[in-house]
Amino acid sequence: MSATDESSLETVLLVAQDAARQAGKKIRDVALSPGNVKLTTKSATTDLVTETDEECEKLIINQIKANFPDDKIIGEESSGSDRYELSDLATWTIDPIDGTTNFVHRLKISCVIISYIVKRVVKVGVIYDPYADEMFWAISGKGAFLSTENGESVPIHVSTTTTLSNAVLSMDPGYGRDKVAVERYTKMQAAILSRSVRNLRIIGCTGLNMAWVSCGRLDGGFELGDWDANRGPKIWDFAAGTLLLSESGGLTLDIESPSTPYAPLDLMKRSFFCAANSTLAAEILECIEEGR
Amino acid sequence: MSATDESSLETVLLVAQDAARQAGKKIRDVALSPGNVKLTTKSATTDLVTETDEECEKLIINQIKANFPDDKIIGEESSGSDRYELSDLATWTIDPIDGTTNFVHRLKISCVIISYIVKRVVKVGVIYDPYADEMFWAISGKGAFLSTENGESVPIHVSTTTTLSNAVLSMDPGYGRDKVAVERYTKMQAAILSRSVRNLRIIGCTGLNMAWVSCGRLDGGFELGDWDANRGPKIWDFAAGTLLLSESGGLTLDIESPSTPYAPLDLMKRSFFCAANSTLAAEILECIEEGR
Repeated sequence: MSATDESSLETVLLVAQDAARQAGKKIRDVALSPGNVKLTTKSATTDLVTETDEECEKLIINQIKANFPDDKIIGEESSGSDRYELSDLATWTIDPIDGTTNFVHRLKISCVIISYIVKRVVKVGVIYDPYADEMFWAISGKGAFLSTENGESVPIHVSTTTTLSNAVLSMDPGYGRDKVAVERYTKMQAAILSRSVRNLRIIGCTGLNMAWVSCGRLDGGFELGDWDANRGPKIWDFAAGTLLLSESGGLTLDIESPSTPYAPLDLMKRSFFCAANSTLAAEILECIEEGR
Repeated sequence: MSATDESSLETVLLVAQDAARQAGKKIRDVALSPGNVKLTTKSATTDLVTETDEECEKLIINQIKANFPDDKIIGEESSGSDRYELSDLATWTIDPIDGTTNFVHRLKISCVIISYIVKRVVKVGVIYDPYADEMFWAISGKGAFLSTENGESVPIHVSTTTTLSNAVLSMDPGYGRDKVAVERYTKMQAAILSRSVRNLRIIGCTGLNMAWVSCGRLDGGFELGDWDANRGPKIWDFAAGTLLLSESGGLTLDIESPSTPYAPLDLMKRSFFCAANSTLAAEILECIEEGR
């Protein structure tokens, strides 16, 4: 049975939050332990995956299966490099450790991401920062919230920043290292800097990029990828974030196939873009177009 | 009386750590409080300073004066935009909130920095991250350490990474938004990306950049500034970090006035460069030269 009514979505949320907290505890324990994280490499230079990643994914999958045995699951480790499919069926997406490079380097900027999608619409989204013990979450139509260590849940809202000169944006080069990708990225960055952005961040974690825009710490963020080059974030990186953004008053857009007006972010693509509002978004989009 | 012998440096360390922890508590309390941080702006677009910044500086200055009344103090708020001087006298440098933009935006990436300098040589350095409750510290000739919430102090070391393809580097655009500054920055970034760096970070906090290189989370970091344009970090941003780097096995260099071989970082300039080792440093320096 799929959870679509309100009370069932509450159950989905509780399962997702509980699984995220358990995975987060493992992440914290490993990252804060003495010695080096034992890691395996997917690709020698740029992408890293650890034993903990696999362990955390198993833990989350087991929790989901115990509660919702018929639901579909799309996950980073289980899907591997295959191209996943999204049907109308109730589907969970999970990223046990978003920000794996940070995790391997013990930079404390990673999160656990879980989303619950029905008929291709994200109904529940959870982004958990295990270091700060911050749980960002949203249920479709019910708002976006941040639960902190004291157990309190407070509604979150995007910032009111409407100009680049007051904005802190995150943008991520991802793993594109060929001439075209590097030029495109640095041109976009040059355009944004030239328009006197307050400043830029590269944090290496799509989930926290989106969560931090949702709560107003950042004003916008993006990463441009595509399937042809097999680069950029995937559904498990940004599905929860899209719901957090729409429920906190912000917006997401599909910057991969630009058309005016831009469509909302496409869950099946490899790019993400989010901003606090359409005025700021328009200014960032002009910079993206300049760099493209 | 200036503290130069070993037991006196221990006292300096304790005063610095205690002041940093007290300032850090204020930072945490304000950043985690509901509502918005009340802020004043130094310059409309790019630099922010808050009441908390001033309060924390006063707190630290009072602690120093109570214990070492004759020592000189160079601090961000008290020095303002004036060009400070460094004499042979015992001198403290303080940055009550390094990463002010992050602080104002409630991004939890800021730190308190205190250094103690005698005859222009850094003798004690303290970098305190109030969110993670991590105290990075070093005494000249005695090694570099990290004290965490459980009170334990463990020696820290730079990473063993010798190639860009295994390195995570931090680089900061600072506040240069004119054509020359933007081009220089993005060209350096393009050169680093083209050489297949594992990835880049922009965290907006010089102190944590240097502390994180000292403990191996990052492999190198830099920001290029100069006095003519009045841009780039100042002595209170990087003095403590230079000691942490040398005591943890890493190195700092003066990238502002390049000469082969590069001189160590000059405390009176406006740029910082640090790396885990000279092999990795050489590769990063080539990219900096390409962009210059």
